Amino acid sequence: MADTVAAAGGGRDEDVSYASPEGGALRHRHAVKGAVDEGEDRGGSACAGADPAEEASVERVFADKAVPLWREQLTLRAFVVSALLSVMFSVIVMKLNLTTGIIPSLNVSAGLLGFFFVRMWTAAVGRMGFLKQPFTRQENTVIQTCVVSAYGIAFSGGFGSYLFGMSETIARQATEAKDANNIKDPHLGWMIGFLFLVSFIGLFALVPLRKIMIVDYKLTYPSGTATAYLINGFHTPEGAKLAKKQVKTLGKYFLFSFFWGLFQWFYTAGDDCGFKNFPTLGLEAYYNRFFFDFSPTYVGVGMICPYIVNMSVLLGGILSWGIMWPLIAKKKGSWYPASLPDSSLHGLQAYRVFISIALILGDGLYNFIKVLIRTIAGFISMVQQNSKSMLPVSDNPSTTEAVSFDDERRTELFLKDQIPNSVAYGGYVVVAAISIGTLPQIFPQLKWYYILVAYVVAPVLAFCNAYGSGLTDWSLASTYGKLAIFVFGAWAGLPHGGVLVGLAACGVMMSIVSTASDLMQDFKTGYLTLASPRSMFVSQVIGTGMGCVIAPCVFWLFYKAFSDIGESGTEYPAPYAIVYRNMAILGVDGFSSLPENCLTLCYIFFAAAIVINLVRDLTPHKVSRFIPLPMAMAIPFYIGSYFAIDMFLGSVILFVWERLNKAKADAFGPAVASGLICGDGIWTLPQSILALAKVNPPICMKFLSRAANEKVDSILAG
Amino acid sequence: MADTVAAAGGGRDEDVSYASPEGGALRHRHAVKGAVDEGEDRGGSACAGADPAEEASVERVFADKAVPLWREQLTLRAFVVSALLSVMFSVIVMKLNLTTGIIPSLNVSAGLLGFFFVRMWTAAVGRMGFLKQPFTRQENTVIQTCVVSAYGIAFSGGFGSYLFGMSETIARQATEAKDANNIKDPHLGWMIGFLFLVSFIGLFALVPLRKIMIVDYKLTYPSGTATAYLINGFHTPEGAKLAKKQVKTLGKYFLFSFFWGLFQWFYTAGDDCGFKNFPTLGLEAYYNRFFFDFSPTYVGVGMICPYIVNMSVLLGGILSWGIMWPLIAKKKGSWYPASLPDSSLHGLQAYRVFISIALILGDGLYNFIKVLIRTIAGFISMVQQNSKSMLPVSDNPSTTEAVSFDDERRTELFLKDQIPNSVAYGGYVVVAAISIGTLPQIFPQLKWYYILVAYVVAPVLAFCNAYGSGLTDWSLASTYGKLAIFVFGAWAGLPHGGVLVGLAACGVMMSIVSTASDLMQDFKTGYLTLASPRSMFVSQVIGTGMGCVIAPCVFWLFYKAFSDIGESGTEYPAPYAIVYRNMAILGVDGFSSLPENCLTLCYIFFAAAIVINLVRDLTPHKVSRFIPLPMAMAIPFYIGSYFAIDMFLGSVILFVWERLNKAKADAFGPAVASGLICGDGIWTLPQSILALAKVNPPICMKFLSRAANEKVDSILAG
Repeated sequence: MADTVAAAGGGRDEDVSYASPEGGALRHRHAVKGAVDEGEDRGGSACAGADPAEEASVERVFADKAVPLWREQLTLRAFVVSALLSVMFSVIVMKLNLTTGIIPSLNVSAGLLGFFFVRMWTAAVGRMGFLKQPFTRQENTVIQTCVVSAYGIAFSGGFGSYLFGMSETIARQATEAKDANNIKDPHLGWMIGFLFLVSFIGLFALVPLRKIMIVDYKLTYPSGTATAYLINGFHTPEGAKLAKKQVKTLGKYFLFSFFWGLFQWFYTAGDDCGFKNFPTLGLEAYYNRFFFDFSPTYVGVGMICPYIVNMSVLLGGILSWGIMWPLIAKKKGSWYPASLPDSSLHGLQAYRVFISIALILGDGLYNFIKVLIRTIAGFISMVQQNSKSMLPVSDNPSTTEAVSFDDERRTELFLKDQIPNSVAYGGYVVVAAISIGTLPQIFPQLKWYYILVAYVVAPVLAFCNAYGSGLTDWSLASTYGKLAIFVFGAWAGLPHGGVLVGLAACGVMMSIVSTASDLMQDFKTGYLTLASPRSMFVSQVIGTGMGCVIAPCVFWLFYKAFSDIGESGTEYPAPYAIVYRNMAILGVDGFSSLPENCLTLCYIFFAAAIVINLVRDLTPHKVSRFIPLPMAMAIPFYIGSYFAIDMFLGSVILFVWERLNKAKADAFGPAVASGLICGDGIWTLPQSILALAKVNPPICMKFLSRAANEKVDSILAG
Repeated sequence: MADTVAAAGGGRDEDVSYASPEGGALRHRHAVKGAVDEGEDRGGSACAGADPAEEASVERVFADKAVPLWREQLTLRAFVVSALLSVMFSVIVMKLNLTTGIIPSLNVSAGLLGFFFVRMWTAAVGRMGFLKQPFTRQENTVIQTCVVSAYGIAFSGGFGSYLFGMSETIARQATEAKDANNIKDPHLGWMIGFLFLVSFIGLFALVPLRKIMIVDYKLTYPSGTATAYLINGFHTPEGAKLAKKQVKTLGKYFLFSFFWGLFQWFYTAGDDCGFKNFPTLGLEAYYNRFFFDFSPTYVGVGMICPYIVNMSVLLGGILSWGIMWPLIAKKKGSWYPASLPDSSLHGLQAYRVFISIALILGDGLYNFIKVLIRTIAGFISMVQQNSKSMLPVSDNPSTTEAVSFDDERRTELFLKDQIPNSVAYGGYVVVAAISIGTLPQIFPQLKWYYILVAYVVAPVLAFCNAYGSGLTDWSLASTYGKLAIFVFGAWAGLPHGGVLVGLAACGVMMSIVSTASDLMQDFKTGYLTLASPRSMFVSQVIGTGMGCVIAPCVFWLFYKAFSDIGESGTEYPAPYAIVYRNMAILGVDGFSSLPENCLTLCYIFFAAAIVINLVRDLTPHKVSRFIPLPMAMAIPFYIGSYFAIDMFLGSVILFVWERLNKAKADAFGPAVASGLICGDGIWTLPQSILALAKVNPPICMKFLSRAANEKVDSILAG
């Protein structure tokens, strides 16, 4: 069971893509580590970890355990635990959003901790003598689904991208569209309202198609499958034992990471104080943003992400901050005015931001076309065939007998509890109508007909995305979002708040498309754990509701507690906010005002992203696994390499561990990484409360060059 | 064999005593950890680790291995390796001397590394095809003896105590005797000369008595015995395997510690910069010298010292810097003039220094009387009995048959190679005559008749000490040295350079007394490993010669490289230098010029040291093991608690490790500790070379309060 426990995919999406695109064809390690909530949502790719050939018949093992009714799967304790974990993971995701935008899959830790808390609960209640229900894997699936939906909003709500991109802080750093018409500062009220309006509609869009996708087409949904194997694993005796050990490991590293955060805090009395500004590799490297910043979060992220991602990020950092920016900086006064500070988007910063965008768009375009072609091809071949078990792209070797027993039982339970189509269609229409009516209240620039058009087109795109991610585990939600930025931004035009329209439309589109594919992943999980589709659906509705409240509150906490959120070069640069806003500006406004040669460089990198991807796909795996991922290279272009060094360290730790003890590293690596990420993430909660309460750290750990130190010493003495 | 490998005692002496006095009665853990070169030389107490009952017959195991002739035991490679290790350990001991004066036993690491290097040598030469001799345990004993004698000079040469106490740097900090007549600044030339004159004479003093002490009286010599078991252990196949693993562990931690030192260096551009000044427990605690200073050396020392030592040190630190000094500081202006800085010996510093001295003298006096009584009692009971195997104090359960085979073989070889008595007596007279003639050339204040008296009395004291340490493993060398300070200092008087005379006489006396007991420990080791007494003697002569050159050179390196050696509050305060000088001043001059109430406090602490020791000895072990050691409490009184916190951390690490895996902790704990100590120690070598070459570190890691930081920021910005 070790394998399946370690392997659990995500279903989230963001702008950096991690797993290799060859979903099912991935080796196991990639499968586990590929579970990064990312980029074009190449979320899990984790199905390789859950090799159906190994399972023989899972359901025979569970045959003597009764499956509770769908209402019994939805317990109070499940939602209490879910709420708790949702807050925790929302804080973590928010922190990641605002620091680098790289969000690894937290599904394993969510799964582990959910299991652990309910086990504690049942043990405590059982000891008191009035345990009503045992803890079932269906209930576990409900928790998992609820937590993932809830903390998913922290990502898909765009707090690190489109939503925060509307703010004045970000607009101020851009070159244009700084008028009030194109700015909307975040506020708790409208953010919650906006999320409620856009987050539910995706749930209704594809519900009627679930039987076709799960039972008839037997799409793999690697992340959902991996999650199901994780949960099934927990509920076997050995699985529970291993899970207990993993929880212990996770807890240990959680505490370490938490207290390390606490310790660090004491030394951050000033802006450039503390371990976050430790010039580990020397001052010169520090000025070029090469240093180890002692962040357990990104060491953990490095341990979860595949090696190629970490190497790509590091390579991107070296290429940009090590080579290109210093060279471009020498052209100061020639390519761009010497009077500008480095952080101006008319100066050096323009190269950083727009070359990142070029890479992201090039990579996005390539993968969009690729997935589209594969989806269409897969769909056509599926329609042409009529056989019962058709897995068009993925090569799923299945023991016919075993699968048929499992399949039979699973299908039986999956079809037992129906969700009436009237609910689905009715829900979609009602929610869409409300949205169309109220969204323009929030964004007067976003006319009702834009939204109507979006909602008419959305179900088709949602289907494409759900189908594609079923095949490849690769959600293209943020690509659809970017598409929306360009289309709707251009439609509205700058004078009519085109930038804001583009960003808002991006939110609407992303929400629908990503929620729809998430729901389908969950249905797959439910199918494999015999959880009722109805309880899955309810759980996702409740989770989404929680997320719509929790996520904005958490963002609000960060926003109020740390005054410099969104400023370039600070601890919370929110890199994707400025990237998204600049994409919107590009869409509305074209390429005016870019400094000299910037556009040329952008074209080169746009093309390079496509070429590199093409080479990756055309060369054999032996070679291609050493070719970097353009999307991963793009992030350090803008924010620097410090987190790349953390991640590299994570890679090194895991690499050495795997060499020493492969089995142990596979079983406990994700637990260690999750512990590091969660502990550091949760520390931000007390940290931001301290900041809100105006409790300042007492000491500044400062790093001065020898010359500056002598100056300071003479001043302090005098 | 794991037990015996882990247990190896020291034979050195300094002012802090570590092992409990009950030599043989100690439990194993204490035995291992008690191996701290210390205080009244309670060096090893390690015999409990080498339980003779377990061994059955060691010599039967080695029966088929030929014992090389004594000349063959003295190989070139042995002395090359010895020279290498002597330099390494001299650097380490010198660093310890100058930082806190706490020197743990490095015999285990010397043994391990000696074994490792010769094995490498033989393997390399063997591969080249012309290996003449295999590596025998006799040769190993020769190396061990040579290295221990050589690096012993780094301690007994008084570079951290009497010798450096003569310097102007230290005199400047004292209250009086600052005239040229009482000062002699260190210089390479006279230091080497002085050491050659005083270090060899001890070797001749007791040579004729070796048969009586080793064969007839069968004294235990715990440290020597433990070293022998270590070496015997190495040369059995399992021992070699374990040793290899231990070397690997040592090497790993050596590298870690070395590179950590290198890393730290980069951040020490100014005086109060770097990890050594990290206010780990907050600024307020830092000002009272409570902080973790990231020194792997003292974490390692903490792992080697028994828990009670570490706790005593920490308790001493809390009592003094946590409670007493802050209270006394409030009396500023009443007990002592408010105009004085804290570092003046007329002010607060006086309390720090003289209360330390009171504790050290009280503890020393108590243990001197105790060991004297036990020695006399043991000697009387020995003379009264005539039985063959009489081990008066130690309760040595021995299998008669096995011991008699081993004993027979060992005695046979021990008596084979004689050292003619004429060499011993002649040597003593010749060296004494040369000393008497030339020492007054170095110290004109030290009249020839002082030295003559010293050399007449010395053999008796040397016998007492060698006999006492044979029983208890507790060398009282530094107590005899202190005695000499008072006696000869008072004899000469202040106007005739009494302070300098006292300190020089201390050196003369300590050297003889400690060398004599060291030699006897080595004879015991040789006896148990079938090494010839003649090769032991030659090896010790060569080792002493090496030490007389290496130790002053190493000191000179430190002295030239780090300008602030001996200054209170710096990285190298050399605490015992000021303590010894002040003892000399006390002896010559009485208690004049002490600030108010200081003398009263000194009496209280002097009495307290005696009472605490008495209570320790009179209560059962169950209680007494929780009673602190006054000697260990004295050090932080003067220099602060930072190293106590390092040592406490070492204790905690070992404690947890022992709870997790006792066997592994016992086998590898000393290797880890040695690695930490050696790596950090060796780093000082390149560090001081960098300092000599005036290569300054580039960055200052500075710690500022928030207020100071704001001030600095505004200045740096403006």
